Amino acid sequence: MRYAQAFIPTLKEVPAEAQVISHIYMIRGGFMRKIAAGIYSFLPIGWRTIRKIEQIVREEMNRAGAQEILMPAAVPAELWQESGRWQKYGPELLRFKDRKGADFLIGPTHEEVVVDLVRRDVKSYRQLPQNLYQIQTKFRDEVRPRAGLMRGREFIMKDAYSFDVDEASAKKTYQQMYDAYTRIFTRCGLEFRAVEADTGNIGGSMSHEFQVLAQNGEDKIVSCDKCSYTANVEQAEVKRTRVAGGAAKPIEKIATPGKKTIEDVAAFLKVAAKDTVKTLVYLGDGKPVMVLLRGDHELNEIKLKKAVRAGEVFMATDAVITEITGAPVGFLGPIGLQPGVRLVADLDLQGVTDTVMGANAADAHYVHASLARDAASAEWFDLRTAGPGDPCPRCEGGTFALFHGIEVGHVFFLGTKYSEPMKCVFLGEDSKERTMVMGCYGIGVTRVAASAIEQNYDDSGIIWPMSIAPYQVTLLTLGKEPEVIAAADKIYGELLAAGIEVLYDDRDERPGGKFKDADLIGIPLRVAVGKKSLAGGNVEVKARRAKDAMVVPAGEASAKVIERVRAELARLGGGGK
Amino acid sequence: MRYAQAFIPTLKEVPAEAQVISHIYMIRGGFMRKIAAGIYSFLPIGWRTIRKIEQIVREEMNRAGAQEILMPAAVPAELWQESGRWQKYGPELLRFKDRKGADFLIGPTHEEVVVDLVRRDVKSYRQLPQNLYQIQTKFRDEVRPRAGLMRGREFIMKDAYSFDVDEASAKKTYQQMYDAYTRIFTRCGLEFRAVEADTGNIGGSMSHEFQVLAQNGEDKIVSCDKCSYTANVEQAEVKRTRVAGGAAKPIEKIATPGKKTIEDVAAFLKVAAKDTVKTLVYLGDGKPVMVLLRGDHELNEIKLKKAVRAGEVFMATDAVITEITGAPVGFLGPIGLQPGVRLVADLDLQGVTDTVMGANAADAHYVHASLARDAASAEWFDLRTAGPGDPCPRCEGGTFALFHGIEVGHVFFLGTKYSEPMKCVFLGEDSKERTMVMGCYGIGVTRVAASAIEQNYDDSGIIWPMSIAPYQVTLLTLGKEPEVIAAADKIYGELLAAGIEVLYDDRDERPGGKFKDADLIGIPLRVAVGKKSLAGGNVEVKARRAKDAMVVPAGEASAKVIERVRAELARLGGGGK
Repeated sequence: MRYAQAFIPTLKEVPAEAQVISHIYMIRGGFMRKIAAGIYSFLPIGWRTIRKIEQIVREEMNRAGAQEILMPAAVPAELWQESGRWQKYGPELLRFKDRKGADFLIGPTHEEVVVDLVRRDVKSYRQLPQNLYQIQTKFRDEVRPRAGLMRGREFIMKDAYSFDVDEASAKKTYQQMYDAYTRIFTRCGLEFRAVEADTGNIGGSMSHEFQVLAQNGEDKIVSCDKCSYTANVEQAEVKRTRVAGGAAKPIEKIATPGKKTIEDVAAFLKVAAKDTVKTLVYLGDGKPVMVLLRGDHELNEIKLKKAVRAGEVFMATDAVITEITGAPVGFLGPIGLQPGVRLVADLDLQGVTDTVMGANAADAHYVHASLARDAASAEWFDLRTAGPGDPCPRCEGGTFALFHGIEVGHVFFLGTKYSEPMKCVFLGEDSKERTMVMGCYGIGVTRVAASAIEQNYDDSGIIWPMSIAPYQVTLLTLGKEPEVIAAADKIYGELLAAGIEVLYDDRDERPGGKFKDADLIGIPLRVAVGKKSLAGGNVEVKARRAKDAMVVPAGEASAKVIERVRAELARLGGGGK
Repeated sequence: MRYAQAFIPTLKEVPAEAQVISHIYMIRGGFMRKIAAGIYSFLPIGWRTIRKIEQIVREEMNRAGAQEILMPAAVPAELWQESGRWQKYGPELLRFKDRKGADFLIGPTHEEVVVDLVRRDVKSYRQLPQNLYQIQTKFRDEVRPRAGLMRGREFIMKDAYSFDVDEASAKKTYQQMYDAYTRIFTRCGLEFRAVEADTGNIGGSMSHEFQVLAQNGEDKIVSCDKCSYTANVEQAEVKRTRVAGGAAKPIEKIATPGKKTIEDVAAFLKVAAKDTVKTLVYLGDGKPVMVLLRGDHELNEIKLKKAVRAGEVFMATDAVITEITGAPVGFLGPIGLQPGVRLVADLDLQGVTDTVMGANAADAHYVHASLARDAASAEWFDLRTAGPGDPCPRCEGGTFALFHGIEVGHVFFLGTKYSEPMKCVFLGEDSKERTMVMGCYGIGVTRVAASAIEQNYDDSGIIWPMSIAPYQVTLLTLGKEPEVIAAADKIYGELLAAGIEVLYDDRDERPGGKFKDADLIGIPLRVAVGKKSLAGGNVEVKARRAKDAMVVPAGEASAKVIERVRAELARLGGGGK
């Protein structure tokens, strides 16, 4: 493509609406333009990158035995009424009535539609397994669309749905998808982790997120420095710290006037925060629960929800707390707790014999508290949020490091969550009716592009991985001399003939402007043809990531560049079908 | 792909909802399933065909210098308010409010969005021309969705928009798109005509439809049997018939009790229908117009609308007619017409001296009427609808043949219809501000698939053109003998290695069922491996369109098939980039 004819409107200014790197560079580099909050048009080079990501996804899904289909964006409400999601889904769902008054929605995911397809046409175990996927524009009306493609309202997703005869077969399919996702993100040139995750509102019994590691990531991940255990902090298990208990001492009540926080109490009593007890009160499906944690630990509400088997947990209001404990917030403790209030405690407190806890009375704490004695009714669970330095639960001696991540993929083992209510059944080899076992598997195609930038940039612009760069090579003429044009034209022809994707910057611009645009757009390899080098028979070749350009004989430039492009694609594992 | 693992649910029964061939075969062949009226899911083989059409479109658009982008489906109402389409568009437009109450629509076309993109970032003549296209799912809430993909509510369209510095340059771009469309539909293997068309509600000054010729087509096209003139009947000009006038005779009023239709009057008076006058009354923007045509001709309302320069024309009600003429319907005529009623007449009546017309009184007609004398105030226009046998206006001696067509593409020369109100301007070489000159160009991608079937089928099923068939070859095992499997596996491997797309029917089914499915699905080439032929060292190769199979030595089958596939693709002009 000749730059002079291309629609690549780069900008010098940072757009007011953009704050994160990927958003800024995609606007400044002419990859996309905002149409409304969280809604963008992809311009030619932005769309080239998205299509390359789609193609990698497609090749690896096909290789894993999945078949591409396309389900409609407009979905009749009946199907969602059948699954119950029509009633449950919030205002992020785009609902509309057609001209005859029938209810429809724009499908944010397609479990219902695909289950309906499969239950209509698959009747026998001989037609299974099936794994169907689509690549589609989705709309979710986010409250706060932000960060460009990281959390937009309209975006492109690959969603796949698998149907198996039983759990064992479905787990094999899940593993195939896990492996396909690993290949996809590797081919996209991303540093990522497959992370054990909570199944959230999609449901099911097993789930992994694929997280691209990046400072701007919204998600927190812990990863063991010794073994492979990696999990979203929402989900991460923590190994119980072994406590050298010691004999319990007599408990003693101490006045702690105005000392409400762990920090204040610990400082006042001259103990470490870890030698105090943090007491919280929650409502689990409306019922009060007192929660005890080590003073320096944080509660993981998802773990609490699972522990007390509640649909929802909320922190209790001050009024409710005082009603239940008789004490103001800041001085709570398990001693003298009203009957009927459930008491749960984190495993790291089990066996602790000399700690500090609130006295359930204003301006007082107990010292020398012993959990076994003073919180005897507690039920013990892993309740705390994992953090850096915490011991790994899966190996001996490993500790957690903390990463920020961008979720680009998510695989769910669904079981029969949708197939059972929607009667997606088949006849087994024994002619008995059985319910299909499902999985679902998503990739945020447009978010992959943003995450690649969050991981690959410098002060001058983007540094695209070779496999998803809008062009593999940019060729610059520095000057208008006929010999410069002729040498560049020759290289352009040679690269095109070899199937290399070249953005040929033949514009009538100064070299400085061309270099700036090339760096901003982030094409991985740059070839510059200028009068000075050419006088010595040379051109300059520079990798976007490298500090300095290489001087290469003009006659060898194409061969060198072709070799580098192919080597880089091969390194990323491309070409697989 | 192995059929046993594929999701191709063929049906024996004709689905109740389907009436036209393409709809019936796409449901029966497992290409798609209905989700709601006019809304379908594409199953794997249906989607393969759509993607092949998309790819041909993409290659030819790129070859013509257009650049692919993707604009959002959700478009903020402001842009449409600016162009005025928000107010004008009817209930087929899907409008919605987002969670903050802002008005949006799902874009059925994207003139406003693309104009906004271009006016924001294109400032100079040096950035022009630009031609931007996208391939996107559209939603139009048709009153009567019907005929499967021929008129659905959700469908895939390629829409392109060009921006040029002036009319001359814009006309070059228009011609490039015309040529690209010709290549696209040729490569899709379709018999089609580029047809002069009305610019309708899109506006602009020049327009061609690309019509696939098919019996089930909704559109009527006339095409000269001598020259290249081809036009939609809505638009087709008709050459005026030369009339040997003769001297006018005295007019005479005749009682014609109850004879209201042209047929009845002609039979009663023993004259030909062509020797009578058909009188109609219309309202053009609310004002009455009497229209005269030869008795055997039909009015073209689009021509009438242009003749009287009205925004809308409607046939007058009986009450209005009686009020204007004083006569009941069936006996209308120009004699004694109220002042203020405009009188227009078709050119084929000009100079007629001996005809029959209504007397503007119940149960009476005039004979020996002369237009020059008895309709002296008439204004003369080409008003009639073209039909088969009519003389061509562009050559001497050519006559029209009538075809039915399916509109698969439409190119419009827009001029400044959108760029002027939306201020899409640039600075010319002389530093003066000018308005960009636009064109827009659509292809109904999903409709192309349906039209290919309407043109290529028989009683057993579809006969896909090679270029858009879901697979190029289907390979059948007839029986389960190890030597049959081995021979078929070998051919499968050889074809795949050559890059041929093969549907390998390795199912445990009887040969009859396999042949039936192969014919229904319509793969262009079939290779059957059976014990009997194989004993003689042979397999059977059959083109879907051919009557009989060829017996081919098993060792030569792959080479023969590869050659046929490539030859057929080359014949259709494939491989161009």
